[in-house]
Amino acid sequence: MADPKDPQDDDAHLRETRVSSEQVFRGGFLDVRRDAVRLPDGSTAQREYVVHPGAVMVVPILDDGRLVIERQWRYPLDRAFIEFPAGKLDAGEGAFACAVRELAEETGYRAGEWARAGVLHNAIGYSNEVIEIWFARELRLGERRLDHGEFLDVQTTTLEALEADAAAGSLTDAKTLIALLWLRHWRDGRWDLHWQPTPAHLQGQ
Amino acid sequence: MADPKDPQDDDAHLRETRVSSEQVFRGGFLDVRRDAVRLPDGSTAQREYVVHPGAVMVVPILDDGRLVIERQWRYPLDRAFIEFPAGKLDAGEGAFACAVRELAEETGYRAGEWARAGVLHNAIGYSNEVIEIWFARELRLGERRLDHGEFLDVQTTTLEALEADAAAGSLTDAKTLIALLWLRHWRDGRWDLHWQPTPAHLQGQ
Repeated sequence: MADPKDPQDDDAHLRETRVSSEQVFRGGFLDVRRDAVRLPDGSTAQREYVVHPGAVMVVPILDDGRLVIERQWRYPLDRAFIEFPAGKLDAGEGAFACAVRELAEETGYRAGEWARAGVLHNAIGYSNEVIEIWFARELRLGERRLDHGEFLDVQTTTLEALEADAAAGSLTDAKTLIALLWLRHWRDGRWDLHWQPTPAHLQGQ
Repeated sequence: MADPKDPQDDDAHLRETRVSSEQVFRGGFLDVRRDAVRLPDGSTAQREYVVHPGAVMVVPILDDGRLVIERQWRYPLDRAFIEFPAGKLDAGEGAFACAVRELAEETGYRAGEWARAGVLHNAIGYSNEVIEIWFARELRLGERRLDHGEFLDVQTTTLEALEADAAAGSLTDAKTLIALLWLRHWRDGRWDLHWQPTPAHLQGQ
């Protein structure tokens, strides 16, 4: 029986339940499913969606308050984007380990302290992707080790410059815009971040 | 020849160019492609992505400043989400018309004034989806006309309550978080919205 205190109980009149599931495409990266579902009124419908391993975004803050960002080509939209470092979880990898790894690989920076801000769901209509949002500070620059076939520029900027880009429409990446939401509320003292040192087993990556 | 002032020229060292393209899945909704691309170093790679018709999010503001939001089941994540009204463009439909239509269908509200804040790209690694962000005010409640098989709750709340949900981790939908970024900067007088009346040809929907 469901826990009577489960808040999701309030959603019984909205709930869609799985009848059957089929993998309709399995590529090198994309795993696409088509499920038959039962709707709240008892009728059935199909839902097509991507099964995603999950990802992490890192918001790297330099000692002087400047931010480390990337400029990277995004093929589906045929142009480069300004974005914070991010990457998919490897099989069996935790989000914290992924954050430490992606920051080092893509930018060369290692962080002394980390804070997990929360998560975001970026395509709830057709993907189960979840992106964990991590902040990193006490940054020290080391060697960058990009994946084979990965090309990106690393730059530094300010929150104010990124906010101006967002207002002007030249910064449109969703995860990065959400980082700006967190940065603004955190800097203004409204939202808290809980910092922790880099765990010993994640150092030296 | 490329325009020498084109800012994308600066991205030549990042650019990926199409070699070939194949449709690998075509469902009732998802259109999935796998392209061979040439990387900046001349090597080749594959890119898998969703071709999306584009979407619109509407941020509806009541006369007293409260906001209209929805609670909707999102099957890929098997739970309900708090989110602003949104929907995909119909074939041949403009974004403004889609905003007017989705607001009326999902909430029953018609707006006297509209402002286009900008766009967001929510899954730049594997989708070409773009979501236009529209604000709506001077709301008047009429009849709701949900699509067949569409179930959602309409509620009203405040920006402060939504910000508290975001900080606490119970509001995680990316487009809705980005609406909170716009709402905060607009309310605090930092970002501008340019309001226009609902065009005559879009009234009465």
